[in-house]
Amino acid sequence: MENAAGKPIKCRVCRRAGEPLLIEEIQVAPPQPWEVRIKILCTSLCHTDVTFWKIDIPPLAAFPRIFGHEGVGVVESVGENVEEVKAGDMVVPSFVAQCGECRDCKSSRSNMCSKFKAPNHSGLPRNGGSRFKDSNGQTLNHFLWVSSFSEYTVLDVTHVVKIGDGIPPEKACLLSCGVSTGVGAAWKVADVEEGSTVAIFGLGAVGLAVAEGARIRRASKIIGVDLNPSKHDLGKKFGVTDFINPTTLGDKPVSEGWSKTVMIGVAVDGLPTSIDPQDLCRGKSVTGTYLGGVKPKTDIPHFVQKYVNQELNLEGLISHQISFTDINKAFELLEQGKSIRCIIWMDK
Amino acid sequence: MENAAGKPIKCRVCRRAGEPLLIEEIQVAPPQPWEVRIKILCTSLCHTDVTFWKIDIPPLAAFPRIFGHEGVGVVESVGENVEEVKAGDMVVPSFVAQCGECRDCKSSRSNMCSKFKAPNHSGLPRNGGSRFKDSNGQTLNHFLWVSSFSEYTVLDVTHVVKIGDGIPPEKACLLSCGVSTGVGAAWKVADVEEGSTVAIFGLGAVGLAVAEGARIRRASKIIGVDLNPSKHDLGKKFGVTDFINPTTLGDKPVSEGWSKTVMIGVAVDGLPTSIDPQDLCRGKSVTGTYLGGVKPKTDIPHFVQKYVNQELNLEGLISHQISFTDINKAFELLEQGKSIRCIIWMDK
Repeated sequence: MENAAGKPIKCRVCRRAGEPLLIEEIQVAPPQPWEVRIKILCTSLCHTDVTFWKIDIPPLAAFPRIFGHEGVGVVESVGENVEEVKAGDMVVPSFVAQCGECRDCKSSRSNMCSKFKAPNHSGLPRNGGSRFKDSNGQTLNHFLWVSSFSEYTVLDVTHVVKIGDGIPPEKACLLSCGVSTGVGAAWKVADVEEGSTVAIFGLGAVGLAVAEGARIRRASKIIGVDLNPSKHDLGKKFGVTDFINPTTLGDKPVSEGWSKTVMIGVAVDGLPTSIDPQDLCRGKSVTGTYLGGVKPKTDIPHFVQKYVNQELNLEGLISHQISFTDINKAFELLEQGKSIRCIIWMDK
Repeated sequence: MENAAGKPIKCRVCRRAGEPLLIEEIQVAPPQPWEVRIKILCTSLCHTDVTFWKIDIPPLAAFPRIFGHEGVGVVESVGENVEEVKAGDMVVPSFVAQCGECRDCKSSRSNMCSKFKAPNHSGLPRNGGSRFKDSNGQTLNHFLWVSSFSEYTVLDVTHVVKIGDGIPPEKACLLSCGVSTGVGAAWKVADVEEGSTVAIFGLGAVGLAVAEGARIRRASKIIGVDLNPSKHDLGKKFGVTDFINPTTLGDKPVSEGWSKTVMIGVAVDGLPTSIDPQDLCRGKSVTGTYLGGVKPKTDIPHFVQKYVNQELNLEGLISHQISFTDINKAFELLEQGKSIRCIIWMDK
């Protein structure tokens, strides 16, 4: 692979909240110790990018910024002390770190690395500072430790997952965030058992991945709940057995009985969730999840293998494939509810 | 044992919310099919009795009523189809049923029997109707399927747990609700692991039982949180290693980091619990528990054995022992925060 050192790199920069991303030529610094510089092959737009793209109040808003946190790439170069990956390795970036040494990384009960935990949503490498500068020398902020909307990006090695070559890049890209979150939520957090009933609220890419995880675990009933009736047919491909459109129920509640509720995604709008403690005492539980409880370096290669073995179905999650130059189209499609996952190719 | 058939029975009846309980002579009907009539040896007052004693709005209020749901007794007679226990067996009543046949009883994930589930807090046997009548022939309501504030009571066999004779009645009584709830919450719901940190909010009998459960599981840090500083020394007997009085913390929060929160007890005041979804997404979870996730017929005999083996410490939980005629004193002591568990002896 060509060495990118010293060369200007094309990158999609967002300078203000909610404004279209602009292609600029920027400088991506070489990796410092424990860092990895990656040439992104393709990236995709997750709703978390859109959520943060709209936020204009610091500290969550940190413009100018390079968004993107779901992608796949090849290692271009590594900094000192990096032995886990080398130039040429296929990798997926992960917004969750896994140092492998801390109490949380060693526990089966958490995937929230406590050594490299999330103090904010920018995600600077452990050495601090940004690796991105624009043509005027101005610093550009990272996003979620990844910033994949760039031809090259620099990550701390704790956020880099080596995968094999047996999976096409656009499929591996999905495992970087969305599919791992959904399948992980079903397997690691809900721990769906054979014969159980699973209800999924929202059949986007993550919800469909939950269905796929539940299908593989042989849930007997997989209920898709969505306001968009077109999701019914789509859900069937991923094992959804029943469909509920809550707007058609009248006063009838969607749920009854005890259950384990797993909240997926980011919640940054500050509105509290109201829970009736009687529901909790009668057997309901509510748990959140960050990347579906997935320990990226341990679990993502396992998911890759499941795909290679044709056990994990990723067909149908990619609704669109576009060129990096058209990235703002991906925002439009997601906002309009028209896309599941839109793959954005860097070189096409 | 003397057969109680046809004889008047002394019983503590509460005729109006919040009023002292009065001893009356009542009729306790013989057990119908699948029912067991028990001679109560001793009972104790749990805060749930006090909570319901105060509620004056139906349907939760159902006066006149015989309270009490934590006790121990001897089977006096059984109805048809009862093979699990016979006259003379030592048993503890349980407000949670275990039919052993339904999906929930067969699942390791729930102790909420779905065949005999809780439609209300009265708890009539499956055949319906009350087994209690006062001297005027008026029906008296059951409470939580147990009604142990009576010399005799009738329960559905699904609520009766046979235990051995190796445990004194006053210790077995604690296992009927409070200690099982606390130890169960630590073992079965929180699943405390060796070396973990456990914080307990409220060091009453249940909280101290949680501490004991955490101590047995070798938690390295057991933090007692209570507004009452006298609970500090008491907590040490049950393995509490650190004590926090939240009123002395100023603006500092009691908790930080990810955690599994287990809510214990009944919540009948209707106030919703407010949870920041960001906390959930960053690894916190909230789960409720009914009887600490304990399947009574499976787990309570196991707790009895732990006590017999001197692994489970129940010393120090009984702060008072009184006669049935003084039962209103137990309400006073609990309301004033002076008692942990007050054992109420029927024959003393």
